[in-house]
Amino acid sequence: MQNNEASVFETINNHRTIRKFKSKKLETETINKLVNAAQRTSTGLYQQQYSIISVTDKDKLDKLNQIIPHDIPKNAGHFFLFVIDQYRNQQIIQKHQDKHLSALHSTDKFLAGYSDAVLGVQTTLLAAESMGLGGVILGSIFNEPKTIIDMFNLPKLTFPVLGLAIGYPDEKPELKPRLNQKSMHFFNSYKSPKMQEINDFDDRLNNYYHQRTNNQRETNFYNNLWNDISKGDYRSDILQAIKDQGFLQ
Amino acid sequence: MQNNEASVFETINNHRTIRKFKSKKLETETINKLVNAAQRTSTGLYQQQYSIISVTDKDKLDKLNQIIPHDIPKNAGHFFLFVIDQYRNQQIIQKHQDKHLSALHSTDKFLAGYSDAVLGVQTTLLAAESMGLGGVILGSIFNEPKTIIDMFNLPKLTFPVLGLAIGYPDEKPELKPRLNQKSMHFFNSYKSPKMQEINDFDDRLNNYYHQRTNNQRETNFYNNLWNDISKGDYRSDILQAIKDQGFLQ
Repeated sequence: MQNNEASVFETINNHRTIRKFKSKKLETETINKLVNAAQRTSTGLYQQQYSIISVTDKDKLDKLNQIIPHDIPKNAGHFFLFVIDQYRNQQIIQKHQDKHLSALHSTDKFLAGYSDAVLGVQTTLLAAESMGLGGVILGSIFNEPKTIIDMFNLPKLTFPVLGLAIGYPDEKPELKPRLNQKSMHFFNSYKSPKMQEINDFDDRLNNYYHQRTNNQRETNFYNNLWNDISKGDYRSDILQAIKDQGFLQ
Repeated sequence: MQNNEASVFETINNHRTIRKFKSKKLETETINKLVNAAQRTSTGLYQQQYSIISVTDKDKLDKLNQIIPHDIPKNAGHFFLFVIDQYRNQQIIQKHQDKHLSALHSTDKFLAGYSDAVLGVQTTLLAAESMGLGGVILGSIFNEPKTIIDMFNLPKLTFPVLGLAIGYPDEKPELKPRLNQKSMHFFNSYKSPKMQEINDFDDRLNNYYHQRTNNQRETNFYNNLWNDISKGDYRSDILQAIKDQGFLQ
């Protein structure tokens, strides 16, 4: 591992998603250091409205492996689950106030907790990467939100947001191209995409798929999108799960 | 400015929210560099489902100033608005497919775009901080989501997520305490908060409020929470605004 000295831009510009890990678990000290980094992150109105669950139990990792592809939960050096947490603040307030706290059930507080959690995820990943570790952010926990809620005994006013698998990298993929900046950065008003700019990006992407070391193939951005979008909404139970946890009221 | 060499942990551990800025605008090169950093961030299923709007128009900054407190939009060196963007991907797919793309309207794709945007916000802020700049993440755009949507001509399948004001710091607040790690990091199952741990944190917070250089006061975490939560849901139009933009379907 590096000596925690990698600069911010160096770390950001070297980011690649790591899905293959060496069979070595993270040390407790490293885990605590990463959680501490997450905690230093900005938090909406100082309310610190998220929590982190570290998953180390073998049975739970096995179960997560059935929800998340590529055997990532079992093979990673560590698995974090980030959750919206308005329950803790509800408990703190209710020590003083015997009232129904309707605001905590709002869309606003759902999104505020969601933002807090995601901000924490990105800090944690960059902190890990700066130490020579690698990882992958996992939205695939939403394949089965209710299973996740049950598995980790998430009370009302909490909700899972993202998984984050961290470990010692056992691969080094090429850097993956991004959209032209013009296609996603506008001034003062939203701009509809120009297909010439998208095609230019697609040329770069096609080149990447041809030249990368592993899993070379012939595809483009549209095909990637269509392969996913054409499946329809395969996670249609998220909205009800959010409501069942007491949010969007 | 520093030479972009601040390490990741140094930057994370020195984070403080900056709300007072010197009257100097960010250079175009710096803005492009920050957007480029945002783009290197992880993105769900490689769909790059967010966009950034830089606000430089004086009238629009004036209008934002009425929505966001402390005159931040006008006084910051630069103002970024991060938005969920499934509209771009809809346009790309519809160049090839004459079909209703129901999946793009789902809760899943709303949250995926939300995550992409927030991950990008945190990368941008850390990148800025590593250059000696400072900033504040602004959830207060949700005070008037519909005004924001109109002001920036946001089409259906887009939605504002967070503002991010960046600039040359004109203050250096003390580091603000965080919850005990035990109160927000659990293993294998959610744990209800222990009031002893919360009280311990409150002692540290009380100390911070007494000792900080500016705006010393007598308060605690519960009071902070209650001051906000007791107002009720003062952003009750967010949910309808999300639906009006075509999401949660």
